[in-house]
Amino acid sequence: MAMKTGVEIEQLIQLLAKLPGLGPRSARRAALFLIKKKDTLLRPLAEAMALAADRVVTCSSCGNVDTIDPCAICSDHRRDKSLICVVEEVGDLWALERAGALSGLYHVLGGTLSALDGVGPDDLNISGLVERAAQGEVREVVLALNATVDGQTTAHYIIDRLEGTGVAVSQLAHGVPVGGELDYLDDGTLTEAIRARRPY
Amino acid sequence: MAMKTGVEIEQLIQLLAKLPGLGPRSARRAALFLIKKKDTLLRPLAEAMALAADRVVTCSSCGNVDTIDPCAICSDHRRDKSLICVVEEVGDLWALERAGALSGLYHVLGGTLSALDGVGPDDLNISGLVERAAQGEVREVVLALNATVDGQTTAHYIIDRLEGTGVAVSQLAHGVPVGGELDYLDDGTLTEAIRARRPY
Repeated sequence: MAMKTGVEIEQLIQLLAKLPGLGPRSARRAALFLIKKKDTLLRPLAEAMALAADRVVTCSSCGNVDTIDPCAICSDHRRDKSLICVVEEVGDLWALERAGALSGLYHVLGGTLSALDGVGPDDLNISGLVERAAQGEVREVVLALNATVDGQTTAHYIIDRLEGTGVAVSQLAHGVPVGGELDYLDDGTLTEAIRARRPY
Repeated sequence: MAMKTGVEIEQLIQLLAKLPGLGPRSARRAALFLIKKKDTLLRPLAEAMALAADRVVTCSSCGNVDTIDPCAICSDHRRDKSLICVVEEVGDLWALERAGALSGLYHVLGGTLSALDGVGPDDLNISGLVERAAQGEVREVVLALNATVDGQTTAHYIIDRLEGTGVAVSQLAHGVPVGGELDYLDDGTLTEAIRARRPY
């Protein structure tokens, strides 16, 4: 591609194209958009990125990302320290936080076990979870892993590892999503929803 | 949204969400992706953006963006200076350059006339085009505007303004896109393609 744009613009486009959800075409659109809004968006975004690169760290306790370590959730004294919710990625933690669904703490695994991708137990933050669970303060571990084959394999592995620590292990309920229409749901979800039906 | 993330991350997400093609959800995904790849993507992108903000300027002759003024195209002596191709946005110029479709120079209007959006002739770089056309070196102006109502209104306005300068004005051919299937084309395009049919 013999583009007659400066190296700086080419470089910007190529880096933007690496973001999830942006391809080469939308990266070019984004680059032009940024250049057009140089002072209101390009400069502030460059500064926000530099700041994030300097300040954001991974919480040594739960694996969340924040500018303090332990993170704001781990160091919040109003949180229930006897409950740990295990998630695959930080994005899942954010989703649960947005929902305000949990008063306890989290533990980010950093992925799932996957034979295909060569991800073993040592590649995930599982030992850290077992250590936390064994410290005595923890009463229950909620597995909030994705309802995928890899997610469920990982859940079973974690249940095995937590055996003997004495903590109760639970998992998210399956069922009809709130606002969901039965007609559009898959057989597995419907079967689970019937099986786990509750009295009015 | 009571997110328990640092202000720095919140700020990064909010700025990323302003990019075209990214909404709040994909901005969060992009922010997490960037934080995960702090040294290979987040820092380089922050630097590329800061560099672009410092160095990229608008070409005072054609309106292209580049790190030199006049831009690399305007200062390329191998280019045919008697031919100016008028486009709406820099993205259109890039598209034509990628195709290697033109040996001449460009002129970026910065949009189209639009009564609805309150865009008048003075909001676009039309006077600059008339000045360039009147300088004597220019033989032909190709209008490469979008085949939309606003694009065509703008084309007619420019044709009026260029009257008396003596330059020939042409426009892009309408027809079947290369690789396109007739079945999927609209009536207007098919009618134009028949009307402008060419002998084998």
